[in-house]
Amino acid sequence: MANTVDKYFDLVDQNQQKFIETLREVVEIPSVSSDASKRGEVVRMGEWLQARWEQLGAQCKRIDPGKQILEGEELDLPPVILGQYGNDANKKTVLVYGHYDVQPALLEDGWATDPFTLVEMDDGRLVGRGSTDDKGPILGWLLCAETHKQAGLDFPVNLKFCFEGMEESGSEGLDAIIVDQADKWFKGTDVVCISDNYWLGKNKPCLTHGLRGVSYFHLQVEGPGADLHSGVFGGTVHEPMVDLVHLLSKLVDTNGRIQIPGIYDQVMPVTDEEELTYENLEFSHTALATDLKHDVIIHAEERDTLKHRWRYPTLSIHGVEGAFYSPGDKTVIPAKVKGKFSLRTVPNMEPKRVAELVTAFLEKEFAKLGSKNRMRVIETHGGRWWYSSPNHPNFVAGARATELVYGVKPDLTREGGSIPVTLTFEENLNVNVLLLPMGAADDGAHSINEKIDRRNYIQGIKLLGAYLHEVAVTDMTA
Amino acid sequence: MANTVDKYFDLVDQNQQKFIETLREVVEIPSVSSDASKRGEVVRMGEWLQARWEQLGAQCKRIDPGKQILEGEELDLPPVILGQYGNDANKKTVLVYGHYDVQPALLEDGWATDPFTLVEMDDGRLVGRGSTDDKGPILGWLLCAETHKQAGLDFPVNLKFCFEGMEESGSEGLDAIIVDQADKWFKGTDVVCISDNYWLGKNKPCLTHGLRGVSYFHLQVEGPGADLHSGVFGGTVHEPMVDLVHLLSKLVDTNGRIQIPGIYDQVMPVTDEEELTYENLEFSHTALATDLKHDVIIHAEERDTLKHRWRYPTLSIHGVEGAFYSPGDKTVIPAKVKGKFSLRTVPNMEPKRVAELVTAFLEKEFAKLGSKNRMRVIETHGGRWWYSSPNHPNFVAGARATELVYGVKPDLTREGGSIPVTLTFEENLNVNVLLLPMGAADDGAHSINEKIDRRNYIQGIKLLGAYLHEVAVTDMTA
Repeated sequence: MANTVDKYFDLVDQNQQKFIETLREVVEIPSVSSDASKRGEVVRMGEWLQARWEQLGAQCKRIDPGKQILEGEELDLPPVILGQYGNDANKKTVLVYGHYDVQPALLEDGWATDPFTLVEMDDGRLVGRGSTDDKGPILGWLLCAETHKQAGLDFPVNLKFCFEGMEESGSEGLDAIIVDQADKWFKGTDVVCISDNYWLGKNKPCLTHGLRGVSYFHLQVEGPGADLHSGVFGGTVHEPMVDLVHLLSKLVDTNGRIQIPGIYDQVMPVTDEEELTYENLEFSHTALATDLKHDVIIHAEERDTLKHRWRYPTLSIHGVEGAFYSPGDKTVIPAKVKGKFSLRTVPNMEPKRVAELVTAFLEKEFAKLGSKNRMRVIETHGGRWWYSSPNHPNFVAGARATELVYGVKPDLTREGGSIPVTLTFEENLNVNVLLLPMGAADDGAHSINEKIDRRNYIQGIKLLGAYLHEVAVTDMTA
Repeated sequence: MANTVDKYFDLVDQNQQKFIETLREVVEIPSVSSDASKRGEVVRMGEWLQARWEQLGAQCKRIDPGKQILEGEELDLPPVILGQYGNDANKKTVLVYGHYDVQPALLEDGWATDPFTLVEMDDGRLVGRGSTDDKGPILGWLLCAETHKQAGLDFPVNLKFCFEGMEESGSEGLDAIIVDQADKWFKGTDVVCISDNYWLGKNKPCLTHGLRGVSYFHLQVEGPGADLHSGVFGGTVHEPMVDLVHLLSKLVDTNGRIQIPGIYDQVMPVTDEEELTYENLEFSHTALATDLKHDVIIHAEERDTLKHRWRYPTLSIHGVEGAFYSPGDKTVIPAKVKGKFSLRTVPNMEPKRVAELVTAFLEKEFAKLGSKNRMRVIETHGGRWWYSSPNHPNFVAGARATELVYGVKPDLTREGGSIPVTLTFEENLNVNVLLLPMGAADDGAHSINEKIDRRNYIQGIKLLGAYLHEVAVTDMTA
């Protein structure tokens, strides 16, 4: 194996400029899934990928998930491209997922250069929409396979892939396809790898083994039949906004401590082994405070910030629907308001139990107010967290590959947010999923001037190849 | 006097249909001050009034207050029409104010008939935009003067008038004109009368002798430099929305009791004499609950509801600027939010003192939170209450006129809202102001199907005339 991997690494180094040109080619396709006028470009990007893999000899299956209504227009959803590259019974089968659509981007948003033209900066940044999210990583898999074939190197695994074009718009249609194809196209998958998140910092690679779930709530308080004038009715009727701020204020304190009884009971305790994973992570409050512009960090220790991002539940208040929200003054008593808040959930919290605790608590607090208004708690979404042991052989393979390419043990990270497809694959295919990021924390995935560093892109192409080689030689049943 | 007034009343009865036709004529001019495309109609309405008064022999002065920007367009503000009708040194001088602009109205808002066509219903309602607010009342003064002249009746006073076309859009430009003209056009005014509010109920006339002030606040809490993703930052930074709901919840309880120390200290106590004025008012909780659609009334006794509308301070929470306000779910941590709330103020509260108490309280409560966010209290408006003794001869004249027309003693009411021009006249002219409403509580001034009842319109024309006759024979220096 060592010989093959070394050759592969050399070839990647030799082909750097060619690989950057390929990235340039795909950045120039403005595959913005949220923009109806760009739907043709999204489809073109999917077709580009399919054609390129088929040219290489992969067997592909294009699935059109159906229709959507966008900006009042009925549109075909972009295709999900399934693929199979290699079918050797003696090799393991790795399923990789990625997305070929991108976030919107306009020069006038504040980009320094045209977002759909890849620009290589002197400091090594490859700037362009989609460079890191997620066109760089999906090219990684393709370029890895192409490089092996062109050099006559044995490809270490059977590769299955699943590339979608709606990730930035809620992955519409994808879940049903994964469920449906679990025993068909995805049959025989040994492990899954997703390269669609980021390092914890700017310099040190990582493997990601956990994501938080999210339970979203609307807290509705309804009073009179219509909005009232505060001059006439202020002080004489129970005001929905007054009740709402009282209830919202009971949920969480300024230090992020959730006040709902029972919420912390289901949280997995920190083990000594887990405690060790917080050592030497590439994460500093100084850098964080700079990113935030103002130091509004709650915790004194870096590890506590990470624990509250990764492994403790949190509650955020997002806003209020139905009240006055414009600039200026308006003397309205809103008749019906909805407070929006959500909890990020962690092992071993159950969304159903969370909703029960939240509802029971708010009902009790509302009863205490003694208001004649009507209150309702509506759970609009309850998505589960994902957690994988970093000791699983799939992660061991990822860690070995990282050491091979970067010469350091990767950080073991979790993410505070959610990547729902991770859980969908794990639950439907019953195999381990590894999140193996290519880009860095400062890539600005959804921001202006999105970039991937040349180092991350080139070493990332090596990393994905090395990972496949490591999977090939690792006992996945361990 | 009795003879003249009786003749006047007879003439009004005889001319009912003609007066309704005049109302029809002015309702057909869609003088919507908030609609740039209707500005010409507003001006046309002002010119109609001026022409009609000049035809009668009044001396008029048109003042153009300047320009405004509306919907991106620079527009001339509609004219303020000042007038003088009669100039007899042996007569008292009464200044009347009204406005000739109206609220917007569209058939599709839910009107049963075209809003700019006066429709007389079988039940006596005269339906049309502006019928009660404020075209009916301003016609009242005009038709009173015309009727006296046509019948050769002596007009009892010198009448000055001030009619504006921007009342529904913040009376832009008016205050400066009143201040400027106090010693010029308005010189010699003995008393002021404004007919631009409503009875407490549907059947019984009233005189209004008090208005609440309003102090409006923006409570700003600022945290990080930009909005954050709650998945990544929830639980690790002090969230401005969390601090804001905590602070807002401290201001007032669900029963409308303001929690800011010192706020009630400046409130005038209820005297025995005042207590008596709450007897026999035309006001019931049953009717109020029906209007509200849901019974969300705080107080058990009608008089307590009225006291909290008229003579106690109240605090309402209007909304939040800067947070998520749309339907649906968004997992944002807003970086900078502004809670909007206002206090209605009453004798003898000083706006300056109110702002001091509010600010000091919120600063203390914010300090208790221990947040690293930044808080600011901004007072955007501090308008004073208005209170006039109902024993003033101007009110005595109004009460006698009411008894003459309606055969009952008027209710003595105050309003929970504000009519800032009242205070402007009182403070700059140093004379008493009477609010003498023509319309009823259910006229729907700013709503669909605005109406004035035929009774209120016709008896109202009598009332305004009778009032002028009563002023003529009442010693105003008492």
